[in-house]
Amino acid sequence: MTKLIIKNGEIINAFGRKNADISCEDGKITAIGKNLPVPFGTKIIDATGQFIFPGGIDAHTHLEMPFMGTVSADDFYTGTKAAAAGGTTTIVDFIIPNRGQSLLVARDLWMKRAEKAVIDYSFHMALTWAGEQVAKEMKIVLEENSISSFKVFLAYLGSIGVEDRELIQLLSVGKTLGVLITAHCEHGQMIDENQKTLLAKGKTQPKFHAISRPSWLEGEATNRFLTLARSVDLTVGIVHLTCKEAMNAVYRARQNGQKLYVETCPQYLLLDDSVYEKPNFESAAYVMSPPIRPKGHQEYLWNALMTGQIDTIATDHCPFTQEQKKVGKDDFTKIPNGAAGIENRMALLYSEGVAKNRISLERYVHLTSFRAAQLYKLQNKGQIAVNYDADLMILDPAGNSTIQAATHHHNTDRNIFEGFKLKGKITHTIAAGRVLLENGKLQVTRGAGRFLGKRK
Amino acid sequence: MTKLIIKNGEIINAFGRKNADISCEDGKITAIGKNLPVPFGTKIIDATGQFIFPGGIDAHTHLEMPFMGTVSADDFYTGTKAAAAGGTTTIVDFIIPNRGQSLLVARDLWMKRAEKAVIDYSFHMALTWAGEQVAKEMKIVLEENSISSFKVFLAYLGSIGVEDRELIQLLSVGKTLGVLITAHCEHGQMIDENQKTLLAKGKTQPKFHAISRPSWLEGEATNRFLTLARSVDLTVGIVHLTCKEAMNAVYRARQNGQKLYVETCPQYLLLDDSVYEKPNFESAAYVMSPPIRPKGHQEYLWNALMTGQIDTIATDHCPFTQEQKKVGKDDFTKIPNGAAGIENRMALLYSEGVAKNRISLERYVHLTSFRAAQLYKLQNKGQIAVNYDADLMILDPAGNSTIQAATHHHNTDRNIFEGFKLKGKITHTIAAGRVLLENGKLQVTRGAGRFLGKRK
Amino acid sequence: MTKLIIKNGEIINAFGRKNADISCEDGKITAIGKNLPVPFGTKIIDATGQFIFPGGIDAHTHLEMPFMGTVSADDFYTGTKAAAAGGTTTIVDFIIPNRGQSLLVARDLWMKRAEKAVIDYSFHMALTWAGEQVAKEMKIVLEENSISSFKVFLAYLGSIGVEDRELIQLLSVGKTLGVLITAHCEHGQMIDENQKTLLAKGKTQPKFHAISRPSWLEGEATNRFLTLARSVDLTVGIVHLTCKEAMNAVYRARQNGQKLYVETCPQYLLLDDSVYEKPNFESAAYVMSPPIRPKGHQEYLWNALMTGQIDTIATDHCPFTQEQKKVGKDDFTKIPNGAAGIENRMALLYSEGVAKNRISLERYVHLTSFRAAQLYKLQNKGQIAVNYDADLMILDPAGNSTIQAATHHHNTDRNIFEGFKLKGKITHTIAAGRVLLENGKLQVTRGAGRFLGKRK
Amino acid sequence: MTKLIIKNGEIINAFGRKNADISCEDGKITAIGKNLPVPFGTKIIDATGQFIFPGGIDAHTHLEMPFMGTVSADDFYTGTKAAAAGGTTTIVDFIIPNRGQSLLVARDLWMKRAEKAVIDYSFHMALTWAGEQVAKEMKIVLEENSISSFKVFLAYLGSIGVEDRELIQLLSVGKTLGVLITAHCEHGQMIDENQKTLLAKGKTQPKFHAISRPSWLEGEATNRFLTLARSVDLTVGIVHLTCKEAMNAVYRARQNGQKLYVETCPQYLLLDDSVYEKPNFESAAYVMSPPIRPKGHQEYLWNALMTGQIDTIATDHCPFTQEQKKVGKDDFTKIPNGAAGIENRMALLYSEGVAKNRISLERYVHLTSFRAAQLYKLQNKGQIAVNYDADLMILDPAGNSTIQAATHHHNTDRNIFEGFKLKGKITHTIAAGRVLLENGKLQVTRGAGRFLGKRK
Repeated sequence: MTKLIIKNGEIINAFGRKNADISCEDGKITAIGKNLPVPFGTKIIDATGQFIFPGGIDAHTHLEMPFMGTVSADDFYTGTKAAAAGGTTTIVDFIIPNRGQSLLVARDLWMKRAEKAVIDYSFHMALTWAGEQVAKEMKIVLEENSISSFKVFLAYLGSIGVEDRELIQLLSVGKTLGVLITAHCEHGQMIDENQKTLLAKGKTQPKFHAISRPSWLEGEATNRFLTLARSVDLTVGIVHLTCKEAMNAVYRARQNGQKLYVETCPQYLLLDDSVYEKPNFESAAYVMSPPIRPKGHQEYLWNALMTGQIDTIATDHCPFTQEQKKVGKDDFTKIPNGAAGIENRMALLYSEGVAKNRISLERYVHLTSFRAAQLYKLQNKGQIAVNYDADLMILDPAGNSTIQAATHHHNTDRNIFEGFKLKGKITHTIAAGRVLLENGKLQVTRGAGRFLGKRK
Repeated sequence: MTKLIIKNGEIINAFGRKNADISCEDGKITAIGKNLPVPFGTKIIDATGQFIFPGGIDAHTHLEMPFMGTVSADDFYTGTKAAAAGGTTTIVDFIIPNRGQSLLVARDLWMKRAEKAVIDYSFHMALTWAGEQVAKEMKIVLEENSISSFKVFLAYLGSIGVEDRELIQLLSVGKTLGVLITAHCEHGQMIDENQKTLLAKGKTQPKFHAISRPSWLEGEATNRFLTLARSVDLTVGIVHLTCKEAMNAVYRARQNGQKLYVETCPQYLLLDDSVYEKPNFESAAYVMSPPIRPKGHQEYLWNALMTGQIDTIATDHCPFTQEQKKVGKDDFTKIPNGAAGIENRMALLYSEGVAKNRISLERYVHLTSFRAAQLYKLQNKGQIAVNYDADLMILDPAGNSTIQAATHHHNTDRNIFEGFKLKGKITHTIAAGRVLLENGKLQVTRGAGRFLGKRK
Repeated sequence: MTKLIIKNGEIINAFGRKNADISCEDGKITAIGKNLPVPFGTKIIDATGQFIFPGGIDAHTHLEMPFMGTVSADDFYTGTKAAAAGGTTTIVDFIIPNRGQSLLVARDLWMKRAEKAVIDYSFHMALTWAGEQVAKEMKIVLEENSISSFKVFLAYLGSIGVEDRELIQLLSVGKTLGVLITAHCEHGQMIDENQKTLLAKGKTQPKFHAISRPSWLEGEATNRFLTLARSVDLTVGIVHLTCKEAMNAVYRARQNGQKLYVETCPQYLLLDDSVYEKPNFESAAYVMSPPIRPKGHQEYLWNALMTGQIDTIATDHCPFTQEQKKVGKDDFTKIPNGAAGIENRMALLYSEGVAKNRISLERYVHLTSFRAAQLYKLQNKGQIAVNYDADLMILDPAGNSTIQAATHHHNTDRNIFEGFKLKGKITHTIAAGRVLLENGKLQVTRGAGRFLGKRK
Repeated sequence: MTKLIIKNGEIINAFGRKNADISCEDGKITAIGKNLPVPFGTKIIDATGQFIFPGGIDAHTHLEMPFMGTVSADDFYTGTKAAAAGGTTTIVDFIIPNRGQSLLVARDLWMKRAEKAVIDYSFHMALTWAGEQVAKEMKIVLEENSISSFKVFLAYLGSIGVEDRELIQLLSVGKTLGVLITAHCEHGQMIDENQKTLLAKGKTQPKFHAISRPSWLEGEATNRFLTLARSVDLTVGIVHLTCKEAMNAVYRARQNGQKLYVETCPQYLLLDDSVYEKPNFESAAYVMSPPIRPKGHQEYLWNALMTGQIDTIATDHCPFTQEQKKVGKDDFTKIPNGAAGIENRMALLYSEGVAKNRISLERYVHLTSFRAAQLYKLQNKGQIAVNYDADLMILDPAGNSTIQAATHHHNTDRNIFEGFKLKGKITHTIAAGRVLLENGKLQVTRGAGRFLGKRK
């Protein structure tokens, strides 16, 4: 593998910054220092005036996921390619067994699908039912594959969601195994009831998706999940937190001394529910769960972000084309839930966070890679340090870009951030020492990505 | 019926006080004023130096209730007699159908049992399951019997408790009918799990009852119940609220503009969980749900009470003898839940609340009768006013008393307030113009109490 | 004095309602009942289909007040006439000594001015400085005039405001005397600084008034005042509370068990700071302190109102004409602070509160008269009851009205509620048995109002 | 300078840990890695089984401080020697001008005093008055000495405290200069009043010190300081935060998006106000401001600490002997405020925090050195990294120790943590490559410490 040296940039870590060169070899960082020697044959990237960040870690993606009668539009190849185009060098996707299905069978399916990936990846395991078999298989994937992060859905009851009694069992197993359990928090039963009531009144358009699942039902479920976790003394995580009520549940738990992690996504920081007023079924592009929230919630999340109350920013990338969304034209409950974002996360948070002085460069790294590497035990990721993987993103603060579906690499025809003008331009993405993006040119290798857990 | 006049006392209403005489005839107050004439044959009570309050309304009792394999130790005769001894002239008990049982069948059973009562009474209807029949019968008891207050249990799942899906249905029916729904709020499933875990470890003593149902599980359920009520836009009530977490859920809901009512009980204001350290199974006397809370919660409830955040004080009177409790000697989950209090409420709250300057005389009336009359639509109750029922309690602030099982009228061998020394002495209880208690002498008539709703 | 009988209306008290007639004689209510006899010569008002409320009590007015180099535009005659036109039958105004001036001298001045009033009135005494003389004179006005309510300003430092050291002294005296102290809560020093900074930048327009005194400075002062009151164990009141931060300080204090009272005003419930964008110095009409708040605060106050967290609604009536306001044309700090509202309060709160189902009829009475009578010890006011003053407002819920400066009785050329269309029409105002307003005709007598305290 | 190598230990940084050797030369860390070569003449420390932490940074000390008529009992020699004995290798002390005194004069005084120090040191500058001279001199010490951290006292009014008007000025200057301002938050005026009242009642004993300054007065001042800082948009810090009310003010500010830092001290985490009940004037040893708080506050602070809400742990080391304290034998307001702790901080937080599983090893470093280095701009401190200062503390987790005044190095006769039995034993302290403590042997050099700012 070619040797690589990045010269003259400013290296940003979660815990500090410095001006230094970075040498890479065999996919690893081998030296950091001023005026590093450049052996013959070394590829040189000049990063003068640019920031060098650890490559992005997107710890919440759904590639090639069968869902609501269809499959998310990006597979592990197109999805990770889009990721690379946007400075992300690692993803953590979800294995989602059907209710009753063996975790191991699902694991094998997803491991197979992921072989196409162009960047490194790992998995969370979704827990969609409970029982002795599930407990046993949780232990197996932990031991055989180092999968130590599990997820439950409090919504989607009847399909992949779990009832409280199951949840309690799963939390207890989690405590025994010493693993992390995260949750999608919404009160599923009330949402089901709201959906029925709305449809019965002929309220079928996409905007009723948001109305059927108001923020307080996320707040309720967040509070419940945290309370049950407290009862079994397990440290847990809240994924894609969107609203004031949920954030308040987090604040209360922390004031109580409860340890927990919080993830949010750019769409919840940057969009408000006026998107559901878009005409011609355009609003369907924004149908996701939890939904985009009314004005006010965004600022509350930014406040949390700016004061260190949020651990990670992920995307919940789960794209569907408008063609796929059309199945719910006359019934919002049938619209496949999800949207794309994997390519935009790093650029959005730099522009809206760092460039607007809401967060420091260091915090940016914490949120986009460092903390995810810690939480999901991604060895040698999330830092720019000797012996760490040569996963890097180089960004030119003087550059800028505009988000457009016309040019994005997501395998879908809409971009929920369409038209966002961003400060900063990502000039290079380097994954395990491979230069995937260089000054606008994307060059990836199908299957070059590695599974970061163990293969038995 | 004999005419009655009470002279020279100070009349206390929830909205003011004045010195005046009260004339009663045919069970009603017929005049209030200075120096009222005293027709021949009128019984005169001299209340010089004493306070005259509306007779107490205890809106949470469980007389003659089949529960946990036995029956609560006070029937409608002994229970209401004890009530009268303590200044209470009206109770609201609970009709509790079995899961699957017709509400109407249960109603008939309870109406029959209650015929023994010596004071007036009404009923809440418990909703222990959901479905079309329940919805239909809720309407029937509302129309035929004016029962407009319903109750659900979020604990006791599997017997009288309801799951969230049922709860949502019931709240929707409640909204349609325009009735009140109150709830016993504890997270039933987690408590079940805690019980199993504790018993499996050999932790069988009464104190583990309290440990199996910590305050945060009440807080969680209170928050959940209020959130679901918000979703269907129904005004609801929280009964026997005991702790900080639940009170905080109430505060949050109110800050959100949600209308709701709160009830607590003297035991949650005055006892702390050190009672569970009593030796020789004495602690079983305090096994009730929710349990007595750790130190700190009591002060928090008093703060709420002193600042107008609590609507009513009831007892949750549900006595069991130590003999009955013994069935759970080796397994705390088998101890019948409940304790007596119907006789002590008025005296306790006067002494601990008014005499200690925590609440005003007017607020005392609000908490012990006025507000319950409003909430549960008890016509002509809760005020001392012309045309209102002649339900009165006279209390001598210069007197005092001590609570003792040896002298109480509860049909049980323990008193959870044993040894409490109280300021103030209840000298008279007058129910619908009948003098039931006079200077220590109690004289009641089996069956003299009236059902305050309609009989079809 | 003519006898008066109001027939067929629905009487609303803070604690209940009933259909009954009301007889009045010699300024008092003499009987309440069905089908009261009508002696010869009795004036009859038919209130069929109408609500009869206790006459409004506006406990926060500034009539004929010297302020900021001018005098508020309504004197005790025009101001109380406007009050009567709007259903208000009692006001509580403020005696405001200059810093260093004897309270007794100021009292005499205001007592003289008030002799013109057409309805009953009382006074709060402002405390604008501290010291032995002030302490002595507080006792004197309490004893000689029954003035038991005092007020401090935490803003307006250098003129009528007090510094913390003075405030502490005054609270201590208040504790000794057992009186009520209320406060205008804003952090005066920071506002002074903001004003200087804004003016230095050439920001002189009325809208910078609001910007110079943001809501968090009211929240701060409210928190500080309540904390100091807690330290001396005095029950206090917050007047004209406007915002979320201040309301949160109140919530925290109550959760702590602190007893306190809260007043707000219609303008803070119904207007938002977009009023400061009005062109041509129109925005000056809205210059008052605290200022009108940004969107969001209003809903938060309504939530508090709907859930019983606010005690009284007053107006802070303090009108200035646009001519008077013009003095601050080039410097917002010179615009006399204040606006009119005394005529609109009762109608506004009925329409926006009762007619919109935010508050009950009973709560309306509590907020507009009953509670103020309790707090400010206005004997025989605030209830419709025998022996109480015959102060009544009759309102036709089927009627409606529109607020217009063109027709209002305020002595000013602007109305901050201009164009508000209201449900309900006030048909009669009766003050101490005198019919001041009858079906649109206003007939008042200069000087007919009585001082409700003692005259030495 | 001797070369030094530490072999076989586990290196703990705020952002991760690893097993590696550390080479030091000329006071710097020169290499980190497995099996580092050991040149001839290198001193070897075998840290097998031990943790190697960055040397402690105690950012809140008062050595040789004139205060309340005396001088704190540790000078820069004895104080820093005690620090070294306890694993601390850097302190940040306070320059405290008298009211009216030039900041530069005070600076020179303190710089002179500090020359005795055995470890590196820096300074915060106290701002004890306001005005043009202060503003000018703040700029001077920033530019000449790199002093970028300033502090105000909201208590001690009349001596070193500032009134709000001064505070606002200072915050504005701070904003202009881009520096950090921290505050001692207590409501000075109310405390003065409480002291007068207590003394007037003959309440002169040490315990009334705590009673005169209750937690809510700290909460008030914290809230006020943060609100004013928000008004000028300055990031600020709260030092020695002790209580629930203050922590809640912090939580509210953060929920609002306000950036701020929080420091607490071991005494507020580990002691409760029962210490004031000690007989024979022993309680005077605990007289400090803010005082030790009632039970309950400690747990609340631990909750904050465990969930990442507190930035740094310092000591507020300010010792006085019992002889010095005696001046306040008959008047608690005369007792010099302060106690020793500089030697105990690192060991206490390891034992009570890490060993009790409340915080991770990484968080321990964050709290005890890393974060202070960031906040107070201490270059090359707070991390174990190449080119960083060779400031290290080595701790044996299998060891243990007991705190005793008899053996501590503080120059005072009492230790407020007397008798605390601690897990973990500090085996080595290395400051800039000098081994000051080795297996119980302390060897320091007067004057070896360096000032970390600039000398003009």
